[in-house]
Amino acid sequence: MSISPIHHRNFLESLSVPQQVKIVEVGPRDGLQNYPECLSVELKVKLVNRLSKCGFSAIEVGSLVSPKAVPQMADSEKVFRRIVKNPGTDYILLVANNIGLQRALNCEVKHIAVFCSASDAFSQKNVRASVDESLNRIQMICRRAISEGLVVRGYVSCVLGCPYQGVVPLAQVVRVASFLYEFGCSEVSLGDTTGGGTAGMVQELIGAVSEQVPLSRLAVHFHDTYGQALANTIVALQSGIRVIDSSLGGLGGCPFAPGAKGNLASEDVLFMLNGIGINSGVGLPELLDTYRFLEDRLNYKLPTRASRASGVFSD
Amino acid sequence: MSISPIHHRNFLESLSVPQQVKIVEVGPRDGLQNYPECLSVELKVKLVNRLSKCGFSAIEVGSLVSPKAVPQMADSEKVFRRIVKNPGTDYILLVANNIGLQRALNCEVKHIAVFCSASDAFSQKNVRASVDESLNRIQMICRRAISEGLVVRGYVSCVLGCPYQGVVPLAQVVRVASFLYEFGCSEVSLGDTTGGGTAGMVQELIGAVSEQVPLSRLAVHFHDTYGQALANTIVALQSGIRVIDSSLGGLGGCPFAPGAKGNLASEDVLFMLNGIGINSGVGLPELLDTYRFLEDRLNYKLPTRASRASGVFSD
Repeated sequence: MSISPIHHRNFLESLSVPQQVKIVEVGPRDGLQNYPECLSVELKVKLVNRLSKCGFSAIEVGSLVSPKAVPQMADSEKVFRRIVKNPGTDYILLVANNIGLQRALNCEVKHIAVFCSASDAFSQKNVRASVDESLNRIQMICRRAISEGLVVRGYVSCVLGCPYQGVVPLAQVVRVASFLYEFGCSEVSLGDTTGGGTAGMVQELIGAVSEQVPLSRLAVHFHDTYGQALANTIVALQSGIRVIDSSLGGLGGCPFAPGAKGNLASEDVLFMLNGIGINSGVGLPELLDTYRFLEDRLNYKLPTRASRASGVFSD
Repeated sequence: MSISPIHHRNFLESLSVPQQVKIVEVGPRDGLQNYPECLSVELKVKLVNRLSKCGFSAIEVGSLVSPKAVPQMADSEKVFRRIVKNPGTDYILLVANNIGLQRALNCEVKHIAVFCSASDAFSQKNVRASVDESLNRIQMICRRAISEGLVVRGYVSCVLGCPYQGVVPLAQVVRVASFLYEFGCSEVSLGDTTGGGTAGMVQELIGAVSEQVPLSRLAVHFHDTYGQALANTIVALQSGIRVIDSSLGGLGGCPFAPGAKGNLASEDVLFMLNGIGINSGVGLPELLDTYRFLEDRLNYKLPTRASRASGVFSD
């Protein structure tokens, strides 16, 4: 369906959404680390190179954590070294501690990500540390990384609920996000880990966090567990958010329960942004090609809807 | 995740959404007519009775069209006669012509639905008549039905695009919706048949149609082909819509391409409404039970996400 530029301008104003957003493609890390098989370095390199050509301004390439804990990411350095680095794209690697940071420095990574949960119960399960202990570690990582000239992205998980403790106080989310910002994180990504958040909670969350962290430094990271990810995204955009995390094909859930737990699919959000007339710099045809490339090499159907449907109608 | 009533009130005001909405459950008709097998009368009766107990104020039970064209709906009269009629629920049967209307009158149906496409190409394919010819038929059906004391719901299909002709002029959608309203339809449901509509188009559509048809008489009917259904729904609510069509489990798509073409899932929209604090009168636990009841009896996994995820987290 073709929509004229005049419509686009009207849509932006009447919907109160920004003209331009940045999409951070998290499929190669947040997506593939949940895939039960380890993909080859060669396949991952091809995947990231294709995503670069799609026009993403940031791609999460892998993580430098314990290969025992996350075997799917054990070869992230090799992948990072071999990908073609597009000068317009940030290639991000996740680090959890000083060992990971050293690994990042050794292979001349320029962008890293750190993560902290807003939930103590989740933090204990995930990194065997309280939120405050975790924040201390992150502060040290940030200090050294920034002094070495790296750019650091911060993730806050469980911002709208925790799979272990249930409710997470909003004040705790604001506190953790504020610390990450104070530690020098260039961007703080608010992750709805359970996917249980709904539109009103999203608006309230962004309102509260943006009192401490500038809106321009915030990102949203939604999971589609309950089908809410795209509805939450439009409300986040209306609340002034300009950075959206998403994952090729909705990668990130359990592959044996398709559609159940994945990240917001990059194709679905791009279909919406294009329809509204919001510029992201990402090409939908290239993204659909990349989806087909990956799905042909995996053993299951990715949960994205826009990709599945593409080509059915004349759009 | 528990949310206090105070939060709910804030959410309603800050999101600019209505306090109360009506959900029209279209699964037994729009959903099951796309299912390749014919379910038994007994199973359909049990399904509708369960949906009544969920608290829906309107349920589309079946259609009185040619059994050759839609064999899945051939026994709609039997189903209608045997269901327990809840006094708070409208039980709707779709009719396409005078024969259908007579069948409705014969079994003392009180609520019927008529349908017209905004696209000439779709209309020709679907009912072998132009839009104007179709409107003439509908006017005659409405005249007789209303004189017999029936309540008539009107559907407009292809409101945001047509699978055959592509773009559908907005003026044509407004024209068809206005005619249905003038013919005496108590409610006019705007159907995005392709599922290709996005948030801005939805807002523009509702703005334009509501200049001719009061907002209180309009409903939206979204398909999740491109994953846009719930995002479009929140924007429709912000535009003043108070009636939403949805389908148990997201029924309505091709069962062999799960997630690809179904209606907006009732569970997913109810999860959102409950989270925001919008009252619909529908009980989520009862709806999830009904989803499990149906899915256990079908040969495929329904594309809803909220139902699939239910019970995973403590909410």
